[in-house]
Amino acid sequence: MTRARLYLYDTTLRDGQQTQGVQFSTAEKHQIAAMLDQLGIDYVEGGWPGANPTDSEFFASPPATRATLTAFGMTKRAGRSAENDDVLAAVLNAGTNSVCLVGKAHDYHVTHALGITLEDNLESIRASVAHCVAQSRETHFDAEHFFDGYKANPDYALQALHAAQEAGARWIVLCDTNGGTLPNEIGAITEAVIASGIPGDRLGIHCHDDTGQAVACTLAAVEAGARQIQGTLNGLGERCGNASLTTLIPTLALKPSFAARFETGVSPEALGQLLRISRKLDDIINRVPLRTLPYVGASAFAHKAGLHASAIAKDPSTYEHIDPSLVGNARLVPMSNQAGQSNLRMVLADMGLAVARDDPRLPGILDDIKTREEAGYAYDSAQASFELLARRALGQVPQFFEVKRYRVTVERRKNKYDQMVSLSEAVVVLKIGDDKKLSVSESMDAEGHDRGPVNALAKALAKDLGPYQGAIDDMKLVDFKVRITQGGTEAVTRVIIDSEDGQGRRWSTVGVSANIVDASFEALLDAVIWKLLRDGVRPCPS
Amino acid sequence: MTRARLYLYDTTLRDGQQTQGVQFSTAEKHQIAAMLDQLGIDYVEGGWPGANPTDSEFFASPPATRATLTAFGMTKRAGRSAENDDVLAAVLNAGTNSVCLVGKAHDYHVTHALGITLEDNLESIRASVAHCVAQSRETHFDAEHFFDGYKANPDYALQALHAAQEAGARWIVLCDTNGGTLPNEIGAITEAVIASGIPGDRLGIHCHDDTGQAVACTLAAVEAGARQIQGTLNGLGERCGNASLTTLIPTLALKPSFAARFETGVSPEALGQLLRISRKLDDIINRVPLRTLPYVGASAFAHKAGLHASAIAKDPSTYEHIDPSLVGNARLVPMSNQAGQSNLRMVLADMGLAVARDDPRLPGILDDIKTREEAGYAYDSAQASFELLARRALGQVPQFFEVKRYRVTVERRKNKYDQMVSLSEAVVVLKIGDDKKLSVSESMDAEGHDRGPVNALAKALAKDLGPYQGAIDDMKLVDFKVRITQGGTEAVTRVIIDSEDGQGRRWSTVGVSANIVDASFEALLDAVIWKLLRDGVRPCPS
Repeated sequence: MTRARLYLYDTTLRDGQQTQGVQFSTAEKHQIAAMLDQLGIDYVEGGWPGANPTDSEFFASPPATRATLTAFGMTKRAGRSAENDDVLAAVLNAGTNSVCLVGKAHDYHVTHALGITLEDNLESIRASVAHCVAQSRETHFDAEHFFDGYKANPDYALQALHAAQEAGARWIVLCDTNGGTLPNEIGAITEAVIASGIPGDRLGIHCHDDTGQAVACTLAAVEAGARQIQGTLNGLGERCGNASLTTLIPTLALKPSFAARFETGVSPEALGQLLRISRKLDDIINRVPLRTLPYVGASAFAHKAGLHASAIAKDPSTYEHIDPSLVGNARLVPMSNQAGQSNLRMVLADMGLAVARDDPRLPGILDDIKTREEAGYAYDSAQASFELLARRALGQVPQFFEVKRYRVTVERRKNKYDQMVSLSEAVVVLKIGDDKKLSVSESMDAEGHDRGPVNALAKALAKDLGPYQGAIDDMKLVDFKVRITQGGTEAVTRVIIDSEDGQGRRWSTVGVSANIVDASFEALLDAVIWKLLRDGVRPCPS
Repeated sequence: MTRARLYLYDTTLRDGQQTQGVQFSTAEKHQIAAMLDQLGIDYVEGGWPGANPTDSEFFASPPATRATLTAFGMTKRAGRSAENDDVLAAVLNAGTNSVCLVGKAHDYHVTHALGITLEDNLESIRASVAHCVAQSRETHFDAEHFFDGYKANPDYALQALHAAQEAGARWIVLCDTNGGTLPNEIGAITEAVIASGIPGDRLGIHCHDDTGQAVACTLAAVEAGARQIQGTLNGLGERCGNASLTTLIPTLALKPSFAARFETGVSPEALGQLLRISRKLDDIINRVPLRTLPYVGASAFAHKAGLHASAIAKDPSTYEHIDPSLVGNARLVPMSNQAGQSNLRMVLADMGLAVARDDPRLPGILDDIKTREEAGYAYDSAQASFELLARRALGQVPQFFEVKRYRVTVERRKNKYDQMVSLSEAVVVLKIGDDKKLSVSESMDAEGHDRGPVNALAKALAKDLGPYQGAIDDMKLVDFKVRITQGGTEAVTRVIIDSEDGQGRRWSTVGVSANIVDASFEALLDAVIWKLLRDGVRPCPS
């Protein structure tokens, strides 16, 4: 049986940017476009050329994608020709093979928001689409507020779609702009559209999550016959977000009732990268990944209930709707039970630490992890600190040096040119063997700008490690993440530091304290000690 | 037309507690039960008496609720009588009027997870339900893995339901335990159950969000005839969570296609408390409320796109699927460089700043926002800093005081008990009118713990504001968020501070710098100045 092809249209770079707090740079847009391409998306909507400098810059040097890059814009304004509409011109000047124009399909919006006649709006749709088609563009027409418009005035809403179809639009996209339409309504109205003479393989669907049903609404339209799916990675988008491609893609690929009937451009290999791509997007927008995200969330295959965990030990399918590895995810069973111990042994084995099944130190390590995670530590993001914790419990971390004290000062005052400037200075006092080492550093960078207290501390700590200096000279701090989190009953600061060395090794360490400087110093120390340990440096006798 | 009654069954206190990181105390369970009662929930499942000390303690001193308090448990084990099953006895000994027993409905789970015969399982269901009914309990039967079981062996799955029905269960609850079933399957199978002889008004539905469709699955079962809805507040629950009552309740109440046919025990007044109840639960479990939550999220009615904002200014219904006040929420027009001049004018009007459409200062303010957001500022999360930016451009922020300099020191060393301890100290020098004010503070909290350099700075800044002191005495720092972000070409630190005053006002300010202490100080300063301005404090002449 041949399966119908569904086309995936991603609007992360345009509608996704309407998310509160999200603002992509041009470089980030390129990064995301590459991720979408790797995933096997058919259309990548890059933004609205002419609407803002970032989007214009993106289209001025567009990424080379296998996916069809699409420029978004609006149907021409009434009272001028398509040829003379500067907004439309900016969209066409982006030079993409594909364009998407949004236009009104709801009579009330035409007369009240635009303030033009119903016929003028149809003429704008017709002329704008025809103009794009004449310029050899594959043209998508986003019918804004289509479902609300259909409920208010079905004849007019359909006329808007047919105007676009007759003008040559390849795709007519039914948009539930306000996100309030329910799945059964979406299904029934999509069927009515097809009955009116627009075939399903020219119909797209664009939903929002305002009733928590964007995915279900999208699938209802597919069931009714629509063949293009618009959405965003991780469900980014205005208000509650757009339909999430991160959820739709695995549902279409892995649920038999869809997989038997439909195919997309996403290969099983690309699907296996889904978690990585989802997390990468969160990295770019600097968000804590949502643990409960379907398929790719850290909790999506976490089994806390004791009954479930023991059944899973017999057969994972008993409490898992899919095999988590198909989307790059993994089962997670809390570390506090028997399954936790075997997990722990596996992790330790990966670090080269073979520990027997009945080693009496295993429960102690698990308890330690539990206590420290309750205090705010996060070991899944700081494997090097986890390794140090385990090695300490196993008596494998020597005392390389002792931190006697440190002090960091930030001072902000006027300089001789009467400008306010800052200066951070750190003093670190160590005991290495029998030697006492005092180091002091400022945090000035090459341009003479102050980089703050943590930078000063890192420089002071690394300035004179005596006999160990050779081992840490090639080490640098490459990332620094700060989170305010809960440690027991009060807020604490968690700092995660990523370090890198000359061999290209990268490792992450964590520190937690109510004092951000202390938390940072703890993570810095772990980073140095891990490096000394991994390089096989021998401690000085003291 | 009479509307069918839908019964709401909340399992926040039992299934909700399977959420990773959630563990309710008995006192918290009482608090949540009271919230559910206020909302108008019909059944409150309090936990599993006998399974853990907290749940047993909760039922030992149960809350007085209008809702029917329900104890959860499991059908008896094979090979013993219902009367002699200690697990079942613990459930009945809780003394509630209502009990819910989970039992197997999937043949594979019976033979593989339980390891008993199919007939033994049916007997366990029959005998357990009959025993509860004989003890005058309203009995719910949770048919675990029902949908997967029906797909594998429909006859056996239905036999399990009928065993419970014949034994006198008031409610037979169809559970999609693994959360992988799709809405159309849920609808079709629920219809098949009704066709088999179990009327819809004895059927409940229990869904999980593993494909992001728990709400849609629940509504599909209601469409098919089920009349009891199980779910949790905010969609808490194992893995991706349970069906969210916080989303289902307003959908049932406010969407015409459901409201015309169904009613629940939730009054319009209670619905107006939905946001407050949702946030209160987040408070209890110490979570940052999810901004994108349907209906009650902080972003659920946020309009970032310039085009949308200008239409909303004419008529809010153009881009809102419901009136946000019906669920206790409010419209939000965030400022960002995406936004156009009409957004800006609306936001300014909300602050009491009427600015004419053609005011020449508007483009300058937008440019300023753009430049600063590129440098790392985020004004949609820091409305008070945005207001100061706009008011400065309009010449409405007087110079209350001048910061001459500050210095903050963090020192970590051994105390007299040979323990490593930290101490943070800050000095702030201000000029107020003609007076120079030097203030110094430590960051010690009531328990003698160091809270770090930002805390010390905040205390020093607020210590002696001379003539302004009265205005800031009731002000406190309630949240502090740190992000490493991109400011132009290099990483900078963005700090957002939430402040609150004695009138319960809450405001957010932002600071950005490569130096975290400087970024924090900038946000602190904005917080103080916003408060002075809003309180109408007059600046001292200098």
